[in-house]
Amino acid sequence: MMLSELGEFGLIEFIQKSVTKSRNAHFASWKHLLVDTGDDAAAWQSNSHIQMATTDTMVQDTHFDLRFITWEELGYKAMAVNLSDIAAMGGMPEYALISLALPGELDVEAIHKLINSMIHLAGEFGVAIVGGNLAAAPNIVITITIIGCSKGKTLLRRSTASPGNQIAVTGHLGLSAAGLEMLKGKASLNPETSDFLRRAHVQPIPRIKEGQILVECGVNTAIDISDGLIADLNHICESSKVNARIELERIPIHPSIKANFSNYKQLALHGGEDYELLFIADKTIITRVKQALNCPVTVIGDITEEESPQRVIIIDSKGKAISCKKGGWEHFKNGIL
Amino acid sequence: MMLSELGEFGLIEFIQKSVTKSRNAHFASWKHLLVDTGDDAAAWQSNSHIQMATTDTMVQDTHFDLRFITWEELGYKAMAVNLSDIAAMGGMPEYALISLALPGELDVEAIHKLINSMIHLAGEFGVAIVGGNLAAAPNIVITITIIGCSKGKTLLRRSTASPGNQIAVTGHLGLSAAGLEMLKGKASLNPETSDFLRRAHVQPIPRIKEGQILVECGVNTAIDISDGLIADLNHICESSKVNARIELERIPIHPSIKANFSNYKQLALHGGEDYELLFIADKTIITRVKQALNCPVTVIGDITEEESPQRVIIIDSKGKAISCKKGGWEHFKNGIL
Repeated sequence: MMLSELGEFGLIEFIQKSVTKSRNAHFASWKHLLVDTGDDAAAWQSNSHIQMATTDTMVQDTHFDLRFITWEELGYKAMAVNLSDIAAMGGMPEYALISLALPGELDVEAIHKLINSMIHLAGEFGVAIVGGNLAAAPNIVITITIIGCSKGKTLLRRSTASPGNQIAVTGHLGLSAAGLEMLKGKASLNPETSDFLRRAHVQPIPRIKEGQILVECGVNTAIDISDGLIADLNHICESSKVNARIELERIPIHPSIKANFSNYKQLALHGGEDYELLFIADKTIITRVKQALNCPVTVIGDITEEESPQRVIIIDSKGKAISCKKGGWEHFKNGIL
Repeated sequence: MMLSELGEFGLIEFIQKSVTKSRNAHFASWKHLLVDTGDDAAAWQSNSHIQMATTDTMVQDTHFDLRFITWEELGYKAMAVNLSDIAAMGGMPEYALISLALPGELDVEAIHKLINSMIHLAGEFGVAIVGGNLAAAPNIVITITIIGCSKGKTLLRRSTASPGNQIAVTGHLGLSAAGLEMLKGKASLNPETSDFLRRAHVQPIPRIKEGQILVECGVNTAIDISDGLIADLNHICESSKVNARIELERIPIHPSIKANFSNYKQLALHGGEDYELLFIADKTIITRVKQALNCPVTVIGDITEEESPQRVIIIDSKGKAISCKKGGWEHFKNGIL
């Protein structure tokens, strides 16, 4: 059936039923809900003092190409990239609003998969979907807003890095960009590696738990790597009015990329969309974080005083600064996929 | 200059500067802000116990046609329709996140006008713009999320109408739809009427203050008229499991529409986008509301027991029920503009 046959209210009914079915009364967010989907706004009882909110959009043929991503993966990713922003604040996600702009000729079953996948991932993180909007549009635009809270008084900000701090990252970098290159046909890999890279690109894991542990360990500064390591480290440097020095050889690049992509350094430096956490703190705090986290944690450099206009300096294996394009994704300037 | 020359980060800088410039330290929402635009998420100190959130999207050529609306009006309207949803809950809007999907070939000055107009209207209602997202897209999609709070414990819901209650509306109905017909060239009017109807269509006034007064007067049930009187009354009836009877002759239709549009009844019943409040309460409460509000308040019918599958019955001047298509806008089923 086409979406234009089901209509807006048919789709709203499907979403409301699916959301209700997915509920788990043990989630704090559900228990505090006063007005649910189906009213002008959602409302809830707030027990936390610090609230936070973030929004992110995925546009067809800018952020995704339906040839390379399934509907389930698209739903997952749209929710994951928003959760990742809450992770990068050290917050706890609680409520989500989903806005879908969709062409009427889409297949209803595809939309069901998209929505169920969002609901599923939201549920895994205890997030209640409490509202949203549907609109007809010539191409798909998915906008999700997540509202969350902070357990304590500390938030992971971009503006709090100080000279002398170490720079660290969770996980491996460049996997998502390598996955995209592979999907575009630029690399032919064995099934296991292929599956691993595909998942890195379409199903990034939001580091919610890790963000909260960073806060517990005393970290104050973090960002999630969405635009690319250098671009996101630049965001922190500009916001904190500091410079950064990173050592190319220390960047955690997965063996599967080193083995299969000659441009693996570029992928790790500028690839983006890994949704790993880039965080900055004193050495003693980073040592504590390494013990507390279950994922790889790698120190890649340190924060220096603000001086040269080039905020981030990359040092090669011989100790030389290498030139580095600013890189990272920039909308309107970068082309469509 | 084209947007593709300015780039994403150039536009972000413009927005951040404009938002900062518009600030008024007296707004409670600004004073409680902990993390502003420019981080992964915005965060604020919450003093209220009941929080609420709503989101609404405007898609080019679905919701608006750039031939009929200026950039300032588009920015105004995108913010206003979201504020209206908070009004329909009796809430106080506090924070907004703005997501813009835009084609790179747009003129930067146009985008500046769009954004400044959003900021201006948000400022008028004490709303702090605390985040958002920018993305390249083939056509314009504007999604705004507003987060607000309730002063007390009462919210204006859709599910609380009871048989015996009266149905009332603020202002006049059909003006926005008449404005759109005029803009499409279906009516030629004198300059004064033309200007009046244009404003009704492109600059609806969100009834924030009125929504709060409804709560203070003891009203529990309300919706804002966005889909059309009959469609929105249907939403309330379905949600409250009741029926409704309205008298056609009592519907407040402005003389300028009656004089110029032969289909004025259709415009008032199904037009939508007036963003007036449709509210339901006991007669004594409605009398109180009439005294408290500065805008027209008209009783148009009453709520009856749930019986016929047709939720809303319209009675003509002779007391006869007239047939009525469900009407109202439905995305995916209705065409593009």
